[in-house]
Amino acid sequence: MPSVRTGPAPVVLLTDFGYRDHYAGVMKGVIASIAPRARIIDLTHGIPPQQVVAGALVLAQSWRFFPPRSIFVAVVDPGVGTNRLPIAVETSAGARFVGPDNGLLWTAAAAAQIQTVVQLRSARYRLPELSSTFHGRDIFAPAAAWLARGIKLGALGPRLAAMVTLEARTAVRETARSLAGSVIYVDGFGNLVTNLSRAQVYGFAGQRAEGRLAVKVGRHPRFGLYATYGEVPAGKPLALFGSFEMLEIGVRDGTAALHFGAGAGTSVTVRMGK
Amino acid sequence: MPSVRTGPAPVVLLTDFGYRDHYAGVMKGVIASIAPRARIIDLTHGIPPQQVVAGALVLAQSWRFFPPRSIFVAVVDPGVGTNRLPIAVETSAGARFVGPDNGLLWTAAAAAQIQTVVQLRSARYRLPELSSTFHGRDIFAPAAAWLARGIKLGALGPRLAAMVTLEARTAVRETARSLAGSVIYVDGFGNLVTNLSRAQVYGFAGQRAEGRLAVKVGRHPRFGLYATYGEVPAGKPLALFGSFEMLEIGVRDGTAALHFGAGAGTSVTVRMGK
Amino acid sequence: MPSVRTGPAPVVLLTDFGYRDHYAGVMKGVIASIAPRARIIDLTHGIPPQQVVAGALVLAQSWRFFPPRSIFVAVVDPGVGTNRLPIAVETSAGARFVGPDNGLLWTAAAAAQIQTVVQLRSARYRLPELSSTFHGRDIFAPAAAWLARGIKLGALGPRLAAMVTLEARTAVRETARSLAGSVIYVDGFGNLVTNLSRAQVYGFAGQRAEGRLAVKVGRHPRFGLYATYGEVPAGKPLALFGSFEMLEIGVRDGTAALHFGAGAGTSVTVRMGK
Repeated sequence: MPSVRTGPAPVVLLTDFGYRDHYAGVMKGVIASIAPRARIIDLTHGIPPQQVVAGALVLAQSWRFFPPRSIFVAVVDPGVGTNRLPIAVETSAGARFVGPDNGLLWTAAAAAQIQTVVQLRSARYRLPELSSTFHGRDIFAPAAAWLARGIKLGALGPRLAAMVTLEARTAVRETARSLAGSVIYVDGFGNLVTNLSRAQVYGFAGQRAEGRLAVKVGRHPRFGLYATYGEVPAGKPLALFGSFEMLEIGVRDGTAALHFGAGAGTSVTVRMGK
Repeated sequence: MPSVRTGPAPVVLLTDFGYRDHYAGVMKGVIASIAPRARIIDLTHGIPPQQVVAGALVLAQSWRFFPPRSIFVAVVDPGVGTNRLPIAVETSAGARFVGPDNGLLWTAAAAAQIQTVVQLRSARYRLPELSSTFHGRDIFAPAAAWLARGIKLGALGPRLAAMVTLEARTAVRETARSLAGSVIYVDGFGNLVTNLSRAQVYGFAGQRAEGRLAVKVGRHPRFGLYATYGEVPAGKPLALFGSFEMLEIGVRDGTAALHFGAGAGTSVTVRMGK
Repeated sequence: MPSVRTGPAPVVLLTDFGYRDHYAGVMKGVIASIAPRARIIDLTHGIPPQQVVAGALVLAQSWRFFPPRSIFVAVVDPGVGTNRLPIAVETSAGARFVGPDNGLLWTAAAAAQIQTVVQLRSARYRLPELSSTFHGRDIFAPAAAWLARGIKLGALGPRLAAMVTLEARTAVRETARSLAGSVIYVDGFGNLVTNLSRAQVYGFAGQRAEGRLAVKVGRHPRFGLYATYGEVPAGKPLALFGSFEMLEIGVRDGTAALHFGAGAGTSVTVRMGK
């Protein structure tokens, strides 16, 4: 691609607030009040309520597609009001992350190479009054807006030696001929996203594994791995490498989650041979 | 907080249009056509259909968090096409409100101190053709966009002496030892927002009322008032002062609306003692 | 209306991605990365999954309300990964359309008068790696962003002689005294939007057809055509010309889709007399 003009870093929002209430909108008001020129982009507010792992996965899959210095504010925060810390993270890749220190930011920040982590403690860069239930508005949105205004990460509070990590459930080699993984996310089309990456499957079965593998969801009959939906008839299941390079299971013109009665945690096995 | 740079006033949208259709999107197109530089912020389009009271509550809770001269366009408009008036309101606090004169704007505008109310009657600042069902597009979005362009409120139409008010259902002192209120809003997490404010409860029970009060929803067993969710075990109900300073009822890692089978109008009582 | 200042052309998004996932958000990241100054407006992401006809209708009803040089990126793409072409269209009205060549863009582009159609084939204006399932991110968002940056349509790829058209189900004159149409879209309020235009009904029954026509949905009892909702009692059905000049069927303070058990394809008849 031709070179790209730089512009002001956007503030990108990911929450589990949904679209019914005003919570995400109020965060945008706070950001616009502090940094009137900052561009605000909704990544999604549809993370299933309080599912930190789903939020972490979505953030990890998305951050690379935004401008280099983007400031991600992520709020999936079942521990709001307890002693989990509010943090901000600076990375070598340039991306910055703001949110609760509960693992939500971990996967993305680790991929972007964590440089500095600070605790959001400076009263100067918060709203004057803190609630016990809405740190997205009172702490996270202001911190992100001030970063967008150009303050240094270090001004937000003291440095932390480490951040809370997230233990990902990874796929494992079960036998010489099979890989055992699981569903980690069900998208809005009902596609089952697994923890089996293209690299892992190719490492096991060789490049161009399509046609030489059988995939099983729970105890349902096996089916094949294809390059595109167009290769199977309507109503039939298939596996393919989805848009974020993970093995996904879909049903052509149908809904895999309903077809298999499957959800996060359902086992998925990949086996050599048909 | 350090002082904040001013920028152009944003146009902030609140409707009951939902996210399925193009209605809110078309309003944004109209605004961008008239005021290409105005920033547009979605507060929410998830107000339950035609629930003017819920819309008024959400607007009243939100406007303070936006930049001072923000222009709020609110459309929850069961009377569209009847003789309810389209209006715009200027307030002492700076916020401006545009929408139907059905009470929707009242609570927020009153809190921001109403200065001037005008009827949107000037054909110059509307779309050339008016539909009978979509004044959000034809009247309200253009009026807001022209305000963002810098025209004076008075140019939009003749002054009105007053606007339609909204009678709020307020909590009352039932006995010397109890306050009787009700649920006024159920949020997307299923939390029950009541009409009992922190000020009212503290006025009744004294500061730090937590630990000395019992709360009842309908005829369900009573439970306590806490500072945070973290203080009760998973699956247990609790009351706390929510992010907008109203008594809210939640269930830790659960859904209060389902737990209690409760909705807008359900009675909530606060009593001294356990 | 007074004359309007021009500004940079916005990029307007319409998809069937819904609001649960990050797919629409990631497209915005790609656009912001390439064209940091381009304004991005969500028209809707709520098109029912894979319903190309619904998407085409919504786009056709909406494009006129946006600034003249707007760039519409529309993605309802059941054939992603098959040999349907990715295209961009320039029109005499100024609007530009980017998306799959499956009929989705046809109705709007034809109304805006198609000037040039190109196939999106230049590797220079795509993401470096193409997935087989997410051309919205990999092909359509980059093409739109580069148009917003000012490149010429012709740079995106070779010219096509034509684009795929969409055969609209049109209403027909059934007898001298009746018009037979059908429901083509159900909106989020449950209103039934038909393929009977105001022009068609007036052509049949004369201007001010209200009061002289009876409308039937399926085999349900007939009801009248009115100018506004306010003219019928609560709970009663009515027909009216909706905000996009099509005959719509609603129920005052109710939900027509539930009232009639109707959806896309349900027959709607308009008859002279009561």
